[in-house]
Formats: sequence, C-alpha cells, structure tokens
Amino acid sequence: MKILLIGANGTIGSAVATELAQRHDVVHIGRSSGDFQVDISDSASIRRLFAQTGRFDALVCAAGNVTFAPLAEMTEESFALGLQDKLMGQVNLLLIGREFINDGGSFTFTSGILNRDPIRAGASASLVNGAIDAFVRAAAIELPRGIRVNSISPTVLVEAMEGYAPYFRGFKPVPAADVALAYAKSVEGLQTGQTYLVG
Amino acid sequence: MKILLIGANGTIGSAVATELAQRHDVVHIGRSSGDFQVDISDSASIRRLFAQTGRFDALVCAAGNVTFAPLAEMTEESFALGLQDKLMGQVNLLLIGREFINDGGSFTFTSGILNRDPIRAGASASLVNGAIDAFVRAAAIELPRGIRVNSISPTVLVEAMEGYAPYFRGFKPVPAADVALAYAKSVEGLQTGQTYLVG
Ligand SMILES: NC(=O)c1ccc[n+]([C@@H]2O[C@H](COP(=O)([O-])OP(=O)(O)OC[C@H]3O[C@@H](n4cnc5c(N)ncnc54)[C@H](OP(=O)(O)O)[C@@H]3O)[C@@H](O)[C@H]2O)c1
Ligand SMILES: NC(=O)c1ccc[n+]([C@@H]2O[C@H](COP(=O)([O-])OP(=O)(O)OC[C@H]3O[C@@H](n4cnc5c(N)ncnc54)[C@H](OP(=O)(O)O)[C@@H]3O)[C@@H](O)[C@H]2O)c1
Repeated sequence: MKILLIGANGTIGSAVATELAQRHDVVHIGRSSGDFQVDISDSASIRRLFAQTGRFDALVCAAGNVTFAPLAEMTEESFALGLQDKLMGQVNLLLIGREFINDGGSFTFTSGILNRDPIRAGASASLVNGAIDAFVRAAAIELPRGIRVNSISPTVLVEAMEGYAPYFRGFKPVPAADVALAYAKSVEGLQTGQTYLVG
Repeated sequence: MKILLIGANGTIGSAVATELAQRHDVVHIGRSSGDFQVDISDSASIRRLFAQTGRFDALVCAAGNVTFAPLAEMTEESFALGLQDKLMGQVNLLLIGREFINDGGSFTFTSGILNRDPIRAGASASLVNGAIDAFVRAAAIELPRGIRVNSISPTVLVEAMEGYAPYFRGFKPVPAADVALAYAKSVEGLQTGQTYLVG
C-alpha cells in the first residue's frame, strides 16, 4: 500500500512509520520535515499536498495542535487553534483526500484519551478529541467505494512523559510502539467508524 | 432559583419551561422570541444578554444550529455553522456566563444522540454533539465556586417527528416532557460533568 503519514517525524508518527514501513510504502509528511510538507490547519495547503503526492491507499494523521491552558484563563480564542488545526485539519484531510484515495482506502486520525479521562488545562483537547471520535463514527457510514475511517485514542506515551508528566500524574503511559499497532490495525484491517483506545 | 432558558420557545425548550416553571423563576430567551434575545453564535450578543439579565443561578441552553447535509456534498464550510453556533455558542455561554453565575450555579447544555448513533447527513451534528459531551466532562473538573456543568443528549423527540421522521427511521422517539426531566435533574441535582442520555 502507498500510505501518506502526516506527522511522520513526531513521537507517535515515527513509531507508526517504523511499524508500517515493514510492509508498505510510507510517504513521510510533516509541517517542515519529511518528503512533503503540509499545514493541516489550512485547507489550501492540504489541497496542494495531494496534488503533489497523487493517489494513495491510506492516509494516517499523527499531527494536530490544540491550546492547553487552565479553564479560568480560556476565552473563545483559546479554542480556535484546536478547532482549526487538530479538528478541522483532520476533517479536511478526509473531505479533500477522498478525491485522491483509491477504492477500499482508509483514513486514520488521532484523537487521545482526554475526552474520556480529562485533566487540568485540557478542555480544548477534550472537546476536539470528542469531536474527532464522533466524526469518524458518523462519516464512516456515508463514505462510498469501500473507503474507511477510524481514529486512534491513545493515553499519554512513555516517550512524551518527560514533558507531560506533571499534567498526567497517575496515568500509566504506553510505549509508542504499542500505539503504532493500533494504526496498523486501522490501516490493514477492515473495520470502519471505530475509535481504537490504546492504554 | 433564577434560571435563564435559551431556546424557551422551541420544541425542547418549551417543555423545559413547563417543567422548571413549577418550582423556579424561568427567564425565557430566544433568538427573536422571549423576554430577552440572544444569538449564541455571537459572543458579543451573549455578553449583551448577561448585561441585561444580571446574575442567575442556572442557565439552560436548548438551542443550537448545525448543517444537515449528505457527507458527499459537505465541504469545510458545511461544518462552520455547527462549530460557531451549537458548539462554540454553548462553550461561550459558559466562558462568559461564569462571570454572572452565582456560587453553586449550573450550566446545562444540549447535545443529542447522533454522536452515539449516527444517521445520514448528520456528520456535523455528530461531531458537535461529541465535542459538547466531552467539553462538559472536562470543564466540570476545573470550574470554581461549586459551579456545575452537564449536557443532555436526547434521541429524536415525538414532537419533532413530523419533520424529522425520514432521517430517524427505526428510532423510538421520546416525549418532550420526558426530555425535560433530564434538564430538571441537571439543574436541581448535584452531579457535574455528566451527559444525561434520554431515549
Ligand atoms: N504524545 C502523546 O503522548 C499523545 C497522546 C495522545 C494523543 N496525542 C496526539 O497525537 C498527535 C501527535 O502527537 P505527538 O506527540 O506525536 O506530536 P509531536 O511529537 O509534536 O509531532 C507532531 C508531528 O506533526 C507535525 N505537525 C505539527 N503540526 C502540524 C500541522 N499543523 N500540519 C501538519 N503537520 C504538523 C510535525 O511536523 P514537523 O516535524 O515537520 O514539525 C511533527 O511531525 C497530537 O494530536 C496529540 O494530541 C499525543
Ligand atoms: N428536536 C429534537 O428531536 C432534538 C433531539 C435531540 C437534540 N436536539 C437539539 O436540541 C436543540 C434544540 O432543538 P429543538 O428541536 O428544540 O429546536 P427548535 O424547536 O428549532 O427551537 C430552537 C429554539 O432556539 C432558539 N434559537 C435558535 N437559534 C438560536 C441562536 N443562534 N441563538 C439563540 N437562540 C436560538 C429559537 O429561538 P426563536 O424561537 O426566537 O427563533 C428557539 O427558541 C438543538 O441543538 C437540537 O440539535 C433536538
């Protein structure tokens, strides 16, 4: 399969690249790194990406930014990044990418544990993750040509604990290699409309 | 209690008004009807509303618009209404309303069944409902002064079936009066961070 991997240089993405490259042709995409560049918060940038990559069999997005801030300090503007980047970025990857994906292809998006198990400063992340998991479930039933869509919802990663530990006290972190397996299940399996919980 | 009820003239809101008015002072608010007017998609309008109503004990929002359209016809723009109106409208009611709510007060928002049980043309509704339920769960743990927040997630209402039946074949509709009970549970109970499923 030809697999477009957005965020291939990241904590999750680099583990997904290692897992999938054993059996597939993985195209590395990042905001500034990789074979191709894209800013998922900009739909024109997404359209330019697909014009460069051409048709593909699977797209994995392991990228997406949100604002972390105490609720007391949050305003309407604090939610804009998450809505435009991690949420609509991934929605737009499907809305535009469906023109370029082969029959039976799949989209695999990344949400995260915070809509199920919230933490301080995580209101925007929770909102966005809940929206992604719900979008995937709904979009799956309307996609044509055997196209599938799932989301991966990991807890915090072992490899991310150095920076994140103070926010995730009591969470049992999961190794990136285990998270990468869920992406393989989504891409190489046949299920659709699923959210795979990891950790 | 002084309860601000947004959407008081609607299918759900009018049943909530009947239920809560038996025991409380209910202020009727609508886009064009009611004692006060607001457009929840506009945070300046929300701020003007609270300047007029003054302090309150509970806010219930039974309003919120999204775009219903087949996924095949949806673009980025199709999601904008749901994000700005039903989703950020309710988020902004909390972000701004917390300055005006009394200690121990509550916010009760409306999502709906579609993030759990999707239908055709419902991708934006599903996305928004999932975001609301997740936001409520996360915001609850960070709110000060005993302030609470919950969401109500009803299935389709008996009273709405005349227009909605073709989209909700096989769904068992629930009477508005039963849905209204969940709002009373949220406002008059003590739980927070909950999504009350009705139907
Ligand atoms: N790390 C965790 O513990 C964890 C747990 C659960 C969920 N998640 C979620 O998983 C996703 C990835 O997290 P991560 O920790 O692996 O991230 P990361 O290590 O910071 O890597 C992010 C990757 O995404 C790319 N990227 C960033 N913004 C982009 C944009 N707007 N458009 C296109 N590419 C962009 C970066 O490209 P460049 O390298 O070129 O800059 C980088 O390759 C996030 O949505 C995060 O919320 C992470
Ligand atoms: N009906 C159902 O079966 C059902 C089931 C599950 C969830 N829901 C959700 O429940 C909510 C209310 O549904 P409904 O069927 O009761 O609606 P409805 O009968 O159409 O009533 C909507 C009410 O909200 C007000 N309103 C509309 N847009 C507004 C805005 N931008 N700002 C402030 N007020 C606004 C209207 O004011 P005016 O009267 O002044 O125009 C009206 O009072 C929606 O979010 C819907 O998705 C409905």
